[in-house]
Amino acid sequence: MSKKKVVVALGHEALGSTILEQLDAVKNTAKALADLVEADYQLTITHSNGPQVSMIHKAMTELRRIYIDYTPAPMCVCSAMSQGYVGYDIQNSLKSELLKRGISKPVSTILTQVTVDPYDVAFYEPKKAIGRYMSKDDADVEINKGNYVVREGDGYRRVVAAPNPIDIVEIEAIKTLADADQVVIACGGGGIPVIEQQHILKGASAVIEKDSIAGKLASDLQADELLIFTSVDYVYKDFGKESQQPIPSMSVAEAKAFIEAGEFGETDMLPKIMAAIQYLEAVPNGKVVITSLDKTADVINEKVGTVITN
Amino acid sequence: MSKKKVVVALGHEALGSTILEQLDAVKNTAKALADLVEADYQLTITHSNGPQVSMIHKAMTELRRIYIDYTPAPMCVCSAMSQGYVGYDIQNSLKSELLKRGISKPVSTILTQVTVDPYDVAFYEPKKAIGRYMSKDDADVEINKGNYVVREGDGYRRVVAAPNPIDIVEIEAIKTLADADQVVIACGGGGIPVIEQQHILKGASAVIEKDSIAGKLASDLQADELLIFTSVDYVYKDFGKESQQPIPSMSVAEAKAFIEAGEFGETDMLPKIMAAIQYLEAVPNGKVVITSLDKTADVINEKVGTVITN
Repeated sequence: MSKKKVVVALGHEALGSTILEQLDAVKNTAKALADLVEADYQLTITHSNGPQVSMIHKAMTELRRIYIDYTPAPMCVCSAMSQGYVGYDIQNSLKSELLKRGISKPVSTILTQVTVDPYDVAFYEPKKAIGRYMSKDDADVEINKGNYVVREGDGYRRVVAAPNPIDIVEIEAIKTLADADQVVIACGGGGIPVIEQQHILKGASAVIEKDSIAGKLASDLQADELLIFTSVDYVYKDFGKESQQPIPSMSVAEAKAFIEAGEFGETDMLPKIMAAIQYLEAVPNGKVVITSLDKTADVINEKVGTVITN
Repeated sequence: MSKKKVVVALGHEALGSTILEQLDAVKNTAKALADLVEADYQLTITHSNGPQVSMIHKAMTELRRIYIDYTPAPMCVCSAMSQGYVGYDIQNSLKSELLKRGISKPVSTILTQVTVDPYDVAFYEPKKAIGRYMSKDDADVEINKGNYVVREGDGYRRVVAAPNPIDIVEIEAIKTLADADQVVIACGGGGIPVIEQQHILKGASAVIEKDSIAGKLASDLQADELLIFTSVDYVYKDFGKESQQPIPSMSVAEAKAFIEAGEFGETDMLPKIMAAIQYLEAVPNGKVVITSLDKTADVINEKVGTVITN
């Protein structure tokens, strides 16, 4: 089998929410990823970090409350910490799984900054919910700190700006490792958002969509394939309705028509389809598969998942 | 000038202790590092993380106190977070400084695990002080949790095991980037300590000495030079006494004789000299310079610092 350059996007189900959940979840994730390595795929892996960056942000805020000589950690620093935390757990468990299978392939995480536009509309209307549900009182505390909060169900959640990624600052390092046929974990949590101002990269109070950066990363690497793992086996038409139907394959044109028809959920499936389109416009011969993580064997045999091509 | 492969070890003075101190300190550190890049040195940078990992550990502990559904973060996870945090600040400020000088060289951080021996004597007698001074009450809380605490001056400090590094798990990735003439930040805080047990890399409750890993890293990379930056311009004979004298150069044999005579402080200079010796035994033609960070111009011109060779 020929070596395929593949970008893998891991979502919440690959990682869980807490320290113990993640420690457990990454073991399964590592098995799925190791299957792909064994099938001779060169993997560049990116992942979400919602609960993780939220946990760290909360911890750093509590620290400040108790020890007055600590200053609050800005969102970009929390994001960097979350890349360290999640990257370590993934590279540790994947390396262990590969060692167990007698494969000595290098696995490592590149801390990644991603530039965003300070005039991105997202900064004027933050929409990305992070962290746990809050009570009204906790929500008021956040609002008084100048943060944005939205009502969701019975509770409240903090929202931050999710601007579009412009450039992956460390792309050359990622390319170098990918070209050397190593496994690379990069752009964790969408990347640490920075704004370039007169040659200074200034950390931004934002998060970048993991799916969005996956499309950008696959484009920059000219990847053969973009694998987006999520909680469902297929992209569905009429998702959640009685008429729900899996979509085994679609073209970019069909995907755009589905978007036009409002077919995909704005916070879950739509960003994935948008990432797929962005990548396929940059890499016309590319292929996107959207499916669930426990289906890697079938992914390799092309038996499952929604396939998107041009 | 020919390209020199150089491992740089940064200590506390390059980073400061708090979020704001670090943000400020790394700007100066970046200037010193950029001087070395401009002098055509290929840099692999490692750094300490004492106050940083301690801050994170404290924050994660407080979080657990307030939100019962969070589990405590083990030392290895805090170490991974600190690599994310410090690595981001260094790569961000160095990249910015290089952009300002019109140099487009890639700079990135590789999250690094380092294996240690579970039977290392350090685990039986933890000696490495981490974090801030504590009151007697806070110290008692730590002791009740099963942690080690020592008296230091008027206060108390937590101590953890500082075992010797065995192998740098991600060394191939670091080598690949160094060979591609990129700037690499690696083995932050001595590396995330892991114990290899039946092909599983298990996180350990320990920290690895930054100097110790710097010697190992320089050996593994077969570096031309190991630059250890510290708070003094030279290694001194009779340090702190009236008869104090800088040592402009010494051989490995002389260094060993000084150690035998108890010349170097056990927690500050001794680990640096030990790292120098380890590296020079692995790379006989190598060169070690120990000096302060604000002297990089003089380092390049060989006008300052203690030089150790075989």
